[in-house]
Amino acid sequence: MNLPACWTSAIDQPDHKFAELARTRQGVLTKPPGSLGRLEELAIALSAQQRSQTPAVDKVHISVFAGDHGVCSEGISAFPQAVTAQMIANFAHGGAAISVLAKQLNANLEVVNLGTVGDVPQGLAGVIDEYIAPATGNLASEPAMNEQQVAAALDAGDRAAERAAQNGAQLFIGGDMGIGNTTSAAALACLLLDQRPEQLAGPGTGLNREGVTHKAQVIEQALIRHGSDRSPLALLASLGGFEIAALTGAFLGAAARGIPVLVDGYIVSVAALIGVRQQPALRDWLHFSHRSAEPGHRLVLDALAADPLLDLGMRLGEGSGAATAVPLLRSACVLHNGMASFADAGVSGAS
Amino acid sequence: MNLPACWTSAIDQPDHKFAELARTRQGVLTKPPGSLGRLEELAIALSAQQRSQTPAVDKVHISVFAGDHGVCSEGISAFPQAVTAQMIANFAHGGAAISVLAKQLNANLEVVNLGTVGDVPQGLAGVIDEYIAPATGNLASEPAMNEQQVAAALDAGDRAAERAAQNGAQLFIGGDMGIGNTTSAAALACLLLDQRPEQLAGPGTGLNREGVTHKAQVIEQALIRHGSDRSPLALLASLGGFEIAALTGAFLGAAARGIPVLVDGYIVSVAALIGVRQQPALRDWLHFSHRSAEPGHRLVLDALAADPLLDLGMRLGEGSGAATAVPLLRSACVLHNGMASFADAGVSGAS
Repeated sequence: MNLPACWTSAIDQPDHKFAELARTRQGVLTKPPGSLGRLEELAIALSAQQRSQTPAVDKVHISVFAGDHGVCSEGISAFPQAVTAQMIANFAHGGAAISVLAKQLNANLEVVNLGTVGDVPQGLAGVIDEYIAPATGNLASEPAMNEQQVAAALDAGDRAAERAAQNGAQLFIGGDMGIGNTTSAAALACLLLDQRPEQLAGPGTGLNREGVTHKAQVIEQALIRHGSDRSPLALLASLGGFEIAALTGAFLGAAARGIPVLVDGYIVSVAALIGVRQQPALRDWLHFSHRSAEPGHRLVLDALAADPLLDLGMRLGEGSGAATAVPLLRSACVLHNGMASFADAGVSGAS
Repeated sequence: MNLPACWTSAIDQPDHKFAELARTRQGVLTKPPGSLGRLEELAIALSAQQRSQTPAVDKVHISVFAGDHGVCSEGISAFPQAVTAQMIANFAHGGAAISVLAKQLNANLEVVNLGTVGDVPQGLAGVIDEYIAPATGNLASEPAMNEQQVAAALDAGDRAAERAAQNGAQLFIGGDMGIGNTTSAAALACLLLDQRPEQLAGPGTGLNREGVTHKAQVIEQALIRHGSDRSPLALLASLGGFEIAALTGAFLGAAARGIPVLVDGYIVSVAALIGVRQQPALRDWLHFSHRSAEPGHRLVLDALAADPLLDLGMRLGEGSGAATAVPLLRSACVLHNGMASFADAGVSGAS
């Protein structure tokens, strides 16, 4: 198969010279050294990623990737499959959580429709048509995607990163929408982390304990069906969702273009982990926004050596956790750029 | 003595009818129930506090209370005492962390000068003169304040709350500035929580281990000196700082005027705890912004049954942690007010 360019494009390291300049500046600002905690680390990391002495995240690009999942036929979600398409319209009309948050942030929001079972109205503003199929295959009994489909999804993600670059984005956020996608993400995480389904299956949008047990059994079937190939591409094709593969492609594409990424919750973190397994250099471009209430997220974050900024019990998806964390990055930047030094302000240093 | 009005003014409960309306609305918005986690709880609490179906924290009032501490003569801080006055000028000139954050938030920032050893230039914009004395007494060997001084500090805080009310503030933030004030706060916390100085003394602005041990010894002297009266007012007078007493007065005054409070870090949380001990009804008006890196903060938060929104290793004071958390409250409000319901958006509910 022809691999998408993003799969193997070179990813540079962030520029450590700018990290050193930023670290030096943090040491002379009018505050006890280190007293801004992780806001200092954020400013240093963003300086290196943006190759700038005045890091900024004013221009934020949010792509929500949407697609349906064949595994819904196994009854693994509290919500009906029609909701995926309905929510695409809700995103476009401004009524969804990510719509409201994007407006608050003055961020650029787009929805990438990779294929839904329900009908999506034509001509919705901000919805980009990247139709692959109405849904993935049922991962419990067949591969979720064929080679062409997984490549198309990766490419769709890469194109989103390209649009972000064209718009001058200083930060990329990827969101997910797809009824059933915690089942796909949990199945992927089982093989990525060598864990059992019970460890990684959670309530998703609201399953009760019986539902979670059934979900774990469906994942177990998928793991038995899956062969021995644990390469990132084989995992995506066998167990992924269109939106998960697109997220992986988008993150690889953003990093290759020098755009830092703010990772959302469970689904998005699994996509990021697949990207890091394919290209470890991706890791240095990722910030982690929040710890999801979905129990499996902890293990995925541990595998990424990630300590998210927020832990607010959120579990909505759509990129909503990442959007909620954006102001923390903005505060880190304005403090770094705007505070006075001890010398400038005539303030005495530590004795 | 004549007690300040704020010390005994009635504090109403937040309006549970508005909490119920908000809870009902959260249940019909286009998201899995509960999936916005603590952002849902924030919107519900703010609705009840503001008696509004459209809670908002657009108008934020930040008062930074500054004052010097006699206990500095014991050598308990990494920074010289002159810094308190120097930082007041830095706040006014826009170079301090809280200045930068207040500007970013479009918040109203004022600095209340309760008395410093160093000279503060006259006529600084946004600095309110509430001079009591150049510094408190050295709490290791004498009472920090006499009755008139503690009353004056409480009154100064209450007047800040009144200015916030006059400005239509939807949220009150109190910050602290005072070299030596973690020693005062730790001494207060020891008697409030019946703990030993080693449990509550920390590095402050940057003491090494030897410095922290000495600080705990100084606090121990203060506890031996202090009599048996553990009433909130006696504690404040004996061990407090001007800015700590003013913060207590401001929080009682804000709650009495129906303005919710976003509590900052260690110093401010001790002031809030004293307020709650005096008037337990205050607790329902407090939100907690962040967990400070100062180790004693954990015990103070536990005593307030508080689980802060952020844990970013910050330990700067000035109200900077609270200011950093304001966007979370704003996001909670815009989501609550702006999201579509399932019915409005034509999205199917859980099956």
